[in-house]
Amino acid sequence: MGKNLTKRSEDYSKWYNELVVKADLAENSGVRGCMVIKPYGFAIWEKMQAALDKMFKETGHENAYFPLFIPKSYLSKEASHVEGFAKECAVVTHYRLKNAEDGSGIIVDPDAKLEEELIVRPTSETIIWDTYRRWIQSYRDLPLLINQWANVVRWEMRTRLFLRTAEFLWQEGHTAHATEAEAIEEAEKMMRVYAEFAEEHMAMPVIQGVKTESERFAGAIETYCIEALMQDGKALQAGTSHFLGQNFAKAFDVKFANKEGKQEHVWATSWGVSTRLVGALIMSHSDDNGLVLPPKLAPIQVVIVPIYKGMEQLDAISEKVAPLVKELRAKGISVKFDNRDTHKPGFKFNEYELKGVPVRLAIGKRDLENGTYEVARRDTLTKEIVPMDDVVAKIEFLLEDIQKNIYQKAHSFREDNITEVDTYEEFKKVLEEKGGFISAHWDGTNETEEKIKEETKATIRCIPLGTENKEGKCMVTGKLSSKRVLFAKAY
Amino acid sequence: MGKNLTKRSEDYSKWYNELVVKADLAENSGVRGCMVIKPYGFAIWEKMQAALDKMFKETGHENAYFPLFIPKSYLSKEASHVEGFAKECAVVTHYRLKNAEDGSGIIVDPDAKLEEELIVRPTSETIIWDTYRRWIQSYRDLPLLINQWANVVRWEMRTRLFLRTAEFLWQEGHTAHATEAEAIEEAEKMMRVYAEFAEEHMAMPVIQGVKTESERFAGAIETYCIEALMQDGKALQAGTSHFLGQNFAKAFDVKFANKEGKQEHVWATSWGVSTRLVGALIMSHSDDNGLVLPPKLAPIQVVIVPIYKGMEQLDAISEKVAPLVKELRAKGISVKFDNRDTHKPGFKFNEYELKGVPVRLAIGKRDLENGTYEVARRDTLTKEIVPMDDVVAKIEFLLEDIQKNIYQKAHSFREDNITEVDTYEEFKKVLEEKGGFISAHWDGTNETEEKIKEETKATIRCIPLGTENKEGKCMVTGKLSSKRVLFAKAY
Repeated sequence: MGKNLTKRSEDYSKWYNELVVKADLAENSGVRGCMVIKPYGFAIWEKMQAALDKMFKETGHENAYFPLFIPKSYLSKEASHVEGFAKECAVVTHYRLKNAEDGSGIIVDPDAKLEEELIVRPTSETIIWDTYRRWIQSYRDLPLLINQWANVVRWEMRTRLFLRTAEFLWQEGHTAHATEAEAIEEAEKMMRVYAEFAEEHMAMPVIQGVKTESERFAGAIETYCIEALMQDGKALQAGTSHFLGQNFAKAFDVKFANKEGKQEHVWATSWGVSTRLVGALIMSHSDDNGLVLPPKLAPIQVVIVPIYKGMEQLDAISEKVAPLVKELRAKGISVKFDNRDTHKPGFKFNEYELKGVPVRLAIGKRDLENGTYEVARRDTLTKEIVPMDDVVAKIEFLLEDIQKNIYQKAHSFREDNITEVDTYEEFKKVLEEKGGFISAHWDGTNETEEKIKEETKATIRCIPLGTENKEGKCMVTGKLSSKRVLFAKAY
Repeated sequence: MGKNLTKRSEDYSKWYNELVVKADLAENSGVRGCMVIKPYGFAIWEKMQAALDKMFKETGHENAYFPLFIPKSYLSKEASHVEGFAKECAVVTHYRLKNAEDGSGIIVDPDAKLEEELIVRPTSETIIWDTYRRWIQSYRDLPLLINQWANVVRWEMRTRLFLRTAEFLWQEGHTAHATEAEAIEEAEKMMRVYAEFAEEHMAMPVIQGVKTESERFAGAIETYCIEALMQDGKALQAGTSHFLGQNFAKAFDVKFANKEGKQEHVWATSWGVSTRLVGALIMSHSDDNGLVLPPKLAPIQVVIVPIYKGMEQLDAISEKVAPLVKELRAKGISVKFDNRDTHKPGFKFNEYELKGVPVRLAIGKRDLENGTYEVARRDTLTKEIVPMDDVVAKIEFLLEDIQKNIYQKAHSFREDNITEVDTYEEFKKVLEEKGGFISAHWDGTNETEEKIKEETKATIRCIPLGTENKEGKCMVTGKLSSKRVLFAKAY
């Protein structure tokens, strides 16, 4: 198998599309905009799910499951929410097919029209808050901390594997609180949980911040986000956490009796990450040879490739490898011994490079005699000879070191690609020539934001949190600004 | 909280519906036929998923994800398949809503009509086999062993929480093989995996068998099943595994080059279990006091209830309990210390009985002085005083013993409720007076099966596997029969 992968420098977008398919992560299906997630891609998503689910449970959340369908009237109850989702939703109107009377095949049965149309959930605030009205009566029922793993559908016109698909998999947290302060604390906490997941597991550095009004979630008072920088200098929104105020509680009449027995509306948050993270992971670390996966999310952490002539040599190698495989598995390291006789070692080396397996061991006749393995790391593509007695320790070291190294590499790249500018001319120049995040003053108005977007295609990715306020002047209008914000072109 | 649960002997169906809601497992939603699975119910499903997923992976299967939507033309490609699902499917016809021009609200945008309608998957054979055509070229690509965890929709008219809902969660395995023998072996293997899961994890004895032609999955050559008996004497189909022959391979033109280079159609299986299993679990073991959960699937295995007056006593108890909680968790036992000050011990006892927590510990002032716990088991509702030093060993013993005991109880009940009959009169009498499985000779025709169903509402649950063939005469027609089959009224 030749990799024949387009180089990133030639066409980053093409490189990405090819890599997703060639590394067996996903492919387009026969259904417009919907992808098939192949076993290798799904195994990465499963690892992400497991790590996130643990973090959610450790922060007190429980999983539940709500209906796929949302009655049209529910979606319409929160005005800005329906405004945001009505233009791109799948609508179920009938509940039966039948044989056409003229024999032309299977048709929708016109007699099976639904009284009220159902929307395939684009997000579940409305169906969940309709449920919460039954669950919440008293302050004792709060906080209510629920998460759901589910599929959602948004009828996107331009789709790309993992990054933007009509159907995608995600988790959506929906919490209810007695006070505004608690809800804000929750929304901020979940942004931090996402940031920790991105940095510790995905090895992907992120900037935490809040969205401007025009980029907020439809129905939110405040949207917190984590923003990552891809290798082509474009930003990617990797997770959002929303403070919803009392908007949904009011739309669905969810009240609770406070300690004094007085009825109040509940305060809400929602937060989500999706299979889009797999796209972010790919674009953060991978290279012209294929995927580079962080050891914590790699479905196969170590692969062992035998180099042999004839079955006798293979048997001798297999015998040597068996206790190593057992020892690694006992340590919770996922290892594959690829003893397929149908493919040559060179083919296998290529394949595991393409699939981003962090550590590759090779063992041949010479190694058997010398008691060694050849150990290669995917991130640096370097190799060394390691005595068999040291190989387990070496692997454990490498899995940690690769995780750190690719984070550092992505972090350095990100830091090198945040540019402070003070004039709109400079802004346009940097955006054109370098890309990345551009830190600039903005006057805080929708009009200026919109003008910049129209003229340059750059959007405000976030108003960063944890940076100090420093007054300045808007690069476009010259009006006073209290803080720099981060612009970028984005996925 | 009084339990106020209807007694099983009074109205089994009402008892079930009440229990599902009162034990916080699930409830009906505002969407017709769709349920909300509440956190406690979902936690049971998660435990089922984890155990099954492990068993699937151990038998060589990988997870993947396929689109929610199936183009109408795909569903129509396999004739008996579309026949089976067309009458009860949700159809997406439009992809946008808009504001009505007369200001009457949000309406479906008639300009956003899909060229081809999409069906919300009732099962995924068609979309998956359309994909497999791209994945399978050579015998080297086989077997292909894939599983999917997903939601599916079947527009059922009469629904019941867990047992029959318009949307439900399930897993569906879809495998492709080079030979008929291999595919049959796979279908039989997965039936055995389901049986093992039901018996070992759910503590629910099942009978393994094959369905008659009229009860087969739409598109299958053979349907294998596991059938369980509920406490009211009705049977419940708990899992099915289908040998699909080359039906879908032919419908979707999936061929492979065999070792001789000749093109052949691929052989297929599919198999699934769903959230229906939660209903089966409830009805297998629970009693008039509430749920009885097998320790292997109980979200909380041990609950500790403090009995105290004043915060000082509670503090003393908490201090004593802390190391026990830690020790149990280190052993992988899920334990909850319910130190809520808002509810009395009696209330808590009731609640955990209702929720089926297998082991309950209580500790009060006297226990502190004596160095003991009161240990109660949910299955027998018996209690004993156990010295603190022995309590961990006692808990470990009880978790195993309860698992075994409820299996034995269900097994004895099942065995006591299989009745052999030789005449149709006897059959009707047993069905009316006792229920359960009835083992009888049948002539093998659809007509006789249909007649029995119409006259008695009993169906053939399965032709059991692993029992010896003994010739006899059909109880209805007197024609020759080679083997007894199992009849029952069923969920």
